[in-house]
Amino acid sequence: MWKADVLTLFPELFPGPLGASILGRGIEQGLWSVRATDIRSFATDRHRSVDDTPSGGGAGMVMRADVLAAAIDAISAEDDGRPRLLMSPRGAPFNQQTARSLSEGPGCVIVCGRFEGVDERVIEARGLKEISLGDFILAGGEVAAMAMIEATVRLLPGVLGAAESAADESFEAGILEYPHYTRPAVFEGRTIPEVLTSGDHGAVRRWREEQALALTRNRRPDLLENRAKKNGPPIDKR
Amino acid sequence: MWKADVLTLFPELFPGPLGASILGRGIEQGLWSVRATDIRSFATDRHRSVDDTPSGGGAGMVMRADVLAAAIDAISAEDDGRPRLLMSPRGAPFNQQTARSLSEGPGCVIVCGRFEGVDERVIEARGLKEISLGDFILAGGEVAAMAMIEATVRLLPGVLGAAESAADESFEAGILEYPHYTRPAVFEGRTIPEVLTSGDHGAVRRWREEQALALTRNRRPDLLENRAKKNGPPIDKR
Repeated sequence: MWKADVLTLFPELFPGPLGASILGRGIEQGLWSVRATDIRSFATDRHRSVDDTPSGGGAGMVMRADVLAAAIDAISAEDDGRPRLLMSPRGAPFNQQTARSLSEGPGCVIVCGRFEGVDERVIEARGLKEISLGDFILAGGEVAAMAMIEATVRLLPGVLGAAESAADESFEAGILEYPHYTRPAVFEGRTIPEVLTSGDHGAVRRWREEQALALTRNRRPDLLENRAKKNGPPIDKR
Repeated sequence: MWKADVLTLFPELFPGPLGASILGRGIEQGLWSVRATDIRSFATDRHRSVDDTPSGGGAGMVMRADVLAAAIDAISAEDDGRPRLLMSPRGAPFNQQTARSLSEGPGCVIVCGRFEGVDERVIEARGLKEISLGDFILAGGEVAAMAMIEATVRLLPGVLGAAESAADESFEAGILEYPHYTRPAVFEGRTIPEVLTSGDHGAVRRWREEQALALTRNRRPDLLENRAKKNGPPIDKR
């Protein structure tokens, strides 16, 4: 079973959205699990403090190395094969390849930062790998951890149905999804493109490919460039 | 007051993490609000269906234009000044500039997709702007919406204290944060860099600048390139 351990000051937020819908069913079916541990319960002073002022001065508070290390050690033995991740805007950007790679492993340990940051020495001493959800700043790492876990566990065998899994193919090939249409045939005077109701499967496939490529070229030319580098010219590969 | 309206099939997930800690205090203080509306309550058939099979065939289900349009119209009048966003991996990548810009407006309406996608005609007819949290696929738009709202509302005046707000400056300047340290002075034999306890504020500032630049150059050279394009050479600007 794929196991996520989350270290946080807000353990009550988990599983939260991760317990809903198809991901929640995956938990019930024993396909994966998430356990949240309160970092504060590893504080040693009578104020249960987990942070202190930054050495050298400056804004905000810094999470203490000793408290966080104790929390990590309590839930992850030295020979734990799972990667230890720290959600941080300084980290490597999370993407679908990271999700795929995490989903192929035994799980992960995720530290959710709060405050200004985490003492650098615990990052080094416990081999935390910093990972960023994107180029924006959150109040804490919890929602970022949820997004990362959600993107990862939906790739685990059995969590999604086969039909839903197939939906990833276009995106994983480095191209955006073509436009979707469904009933009703007319919505506020807008019709469905005729080719989609023609019954000509080859024409449908060609139209979708063209639309997907045009959309990607228009919105995310960077994806096509990366794809060309990895895979050769985009059109020939489809 | 800054107002977020979220359209979702899982309204019970909100406010969830957005109600915790400093963001939750912002709600209590009337600085911002989030309201979740169940798209399914706008279904018109007896099965309360919100989706149907894709025109032209293929995997998954597509969210119906008519049901989603009715939900949008119920919570957002035609003259609603708020942007209408659709969380989608096809969208423009969300970043700190988007958060800043959203935080300066009146709020936003966010549609959380589920299934394979949303009928293209409602995107056009209701002027939905597609926005992506990153290059990964989630089971639905809810956690992405939470991350976007969290990054945005923490920028609203009064939500964070002044000290915490200052923490954004380095990141918004297109550079990663320098390493942080706090007590204890020695952790598992690891000490705090001497300069930080020297009391020489100029030396501390220079060390942090050097560390931040070195870290950015090493991990995210793309940020420095973008910064150079916008701001001129990185070092001269600090």
